[in-house]
Amino acid sequence: MTSTRVSSGINRRALLAGAAALPVLLGLRIPLHAQAQADPLASWNDGPAKQSILDFVAAVTREGSPDFVPAPRRVATFDNDGTLWCEQPMYVQLAFALDRVKELAPMHPEWKDKQPFKAALDGDMKTIVESGERGTLELVLAAHAGMTSDEFETIVKDWLAKARHPKFNRPYTDLAYQPMVELMAYLRANGFKTFIVSGGGIEFIRPWSEEVYGVPPEQVVGSSIKTKFQMRRDIPVLFRLSEINFIDDKGGKPVGINEHIGRRPIAAFGNSDGDLEMLQWTTKASGRRLGLIVHHTDAEREYAYDRKSSFGRLDEALDAAPINHWAVASMKDDWKQIFAFESAR
Amino acid sequence: MTSTRVSSGINRRALLAGAAALPVLLGLRIPLHAQAQADPLASWNDGPAKQSILDFVAAVTREGSPDFVPAPRRVATFDNDGTLWCEQPMYVQLAFALDRVKELAPMHPEWKDKQPFKAALDGDMKTIVESGERGTLELVLAAHAGMTSDEFETIVKDWLAKARHPKFNRPYTDLAYQPMVELMAYLRANGFKTFIVSGGGIEFIRPWSEEVYGVPPEQVVGSSIKTKFQMRRDIPVLFRLSEINFIDDKGGKPVGINEHIGRRPIAAFGNSDGDLEMLQWTTKASGRRLGLIVHHTDAEREYAYDRKSSFGRLDEALDAAPINHWAVASMKDDWKQIFAFESAR
Repeated sequence: MTSTRVSSGINRRALLAGAAALPVLLGLRIPLHAQAQADPLASWNDGPAKQSILDFVAAVTREGSPDFVPAPRRVATFDNDGTLWCEQPMYVQLAFALDRVKELAPMHPEWKDKQPFKAALDGDMKTIVESGERGTLELVLAAHAGMTSDEFETIVKDWLAKARHPKFNRPYTDLAYQPMVELMAYLRANGFKTFIVSGGGIEFIRPWSEEVYGVPPEQVVGSSIKTKFQMRRDIPVLFRLSEINFIDDKGGKPVGINEHIGRRPIAAFGNSDGDLEMLQWTTKASGRRLGLIVHHTDAEREYAYDRKSSFGRLDEALDAAPINHWAVASMKDDWKQIFAFESAR
Repeated sequence: MTSTRVSSGINRRALLAGAAALPVLLGLRIPLHAQAQADPLASWNDGPAKQSILDFVAAVTREGSPDFVPAPRRVATFDNDGTLWCEQPMYVQLAFALDRVKELAPMHPEWKDKQPFKAALDGDMKTIVESGERGTLELVLAAHAGMTSDEFETIVKDWLAKARHPKFNRPYTDLAYQPMVELMAYLRANGFKTFIVSGGGIEFIRPWSEEVYGVPPEQVVGSSIKTKFQMRRDIPVLFRLSEINFIDDKGGKPVGINEHIGRRPIAAFGNSDGDLEMLQWTTKASGRRLGLIVHHTDAEREYAYDRKSSFGRLDEALDAAPINHWAVASMKDDWKQIFAFESAR
């Protein structure tokens, strides 16, 4: 049974390899020894989380299976912060906003005496966190508006090229979780379309999502600010306004999924209460479904947090997991390796 | 030159046919006689419009060409009403809204004395058109809100199955323009991703866009109303609210393109002033670009209208075409056949 499942994954991946696909195209059976190829989920330890993924993919991709789902309907959605990359000690996008506020400060002398800008300039995280959603929003808008969409893309790329994570001293894009990158590739090799559905900014993720995750810009769903089309001396631009357009979090995730994708996912992956509604929307429907929560349990290799964290709180969704048969992947136990730069244990 | 171009299109389409792709996978050259296959744009008469498409596709797909664009960036956007299907004597979605208002009328006795509902019930198109954008919006909201997204999909499909176009006495989905359906397939066969970018409702188009145009739901951009995620006795639904979320028309088209696709198109196709900004956003940028306007010039086989039409007015964009080197396809002269059901002249 297991070998059939695995070979089904391998066959489809082989399709992408060109010449290796010939036997499949010709309708030939793959000899058994070809099934002994590399594990597509090599960074996952054997256990219930990995098994739930393999079982699900086998069930929905095997023609004739009662759970079979045709390829165009194999939609999988992934939260980003804390699910695909590190969200501690703060969301990467907040680190970006703080750096940008510092950069813009000379043009805004009033910020020296105005919260939450003063806290941002002083590096006073406690006051920033206490300023709540509204304060954080003010900082983010100041950092993200007032330029064209093309200019913003350049700003994000330039920042990512030089910014370093405080704990790992590496570019933030190195902090993608290797097991999740493998999982996305495995799903795509099995005919899935993989989408990012993030509470973070859609335009903050797109400049690097294809390179880091293999997810093209049109498959990124996220929060956004309003933009306005303008002609500037015969040059068309999209100007970024200091006004929220859409918050792709909690109940907003199913709304964003419906608006962007127009199909209900059959698999969803999250790590916090912000993903609860996406997991409900995905799994509480007819047909075989997969919900999986990444649980941050590894203080040594990454961070350990859940019910009381300021960033990526996982409380209600953790309680909902057993009731809804969602898999829970413990980073400490289920992941052989967390980051690509780290050697496997 | 022409034969190289055409064969490039055919090779890629052949890829989709499975076994026919073997020589390509093996890196073999296709013999010359195989290039003499059917014209992928068979419903287009030879002329400047068709030639501009063939020249553009050849330039951006030929490796080593200074205009070469890698496949993931080959994004083409199509307006829907009047560009891909018939928009006269009124937008199909307005016909849907009027029928639905009639269906809902018994639950709304007040509509008998209230405009624009009275006009809708009386079939008084003059008053409806005079009620302007606001009146039309009221009718559309009444028809499109107050149900879940799943229920709305069923309502649209059921209506399309029984509604008939008043002039052609055929289902509206038969009124897709054959030359444009061919064009979309030709572009996809050449590595393009084709998107619909419509002023019409995104949820009105998605239920049939894959079957009629080969465009999956996630590649449809359109206007939308707000939806709200709700749990109803443990069943998650998206409930459609009587409130506009986004108008994907005029300057909204580049905004919608950026929000949904996150890449700037290299080719855009429209037919009215509502497409002007999309054409500007697409073509006024570096690199080879294609803009094309469908001009309704055939009163006999379809309708003839432009500068003064209530639906699909083409005035400013028609003047902008020669200045911006956009192609203009005259339906009378450039299209051998308009609908699939009609025999070629």
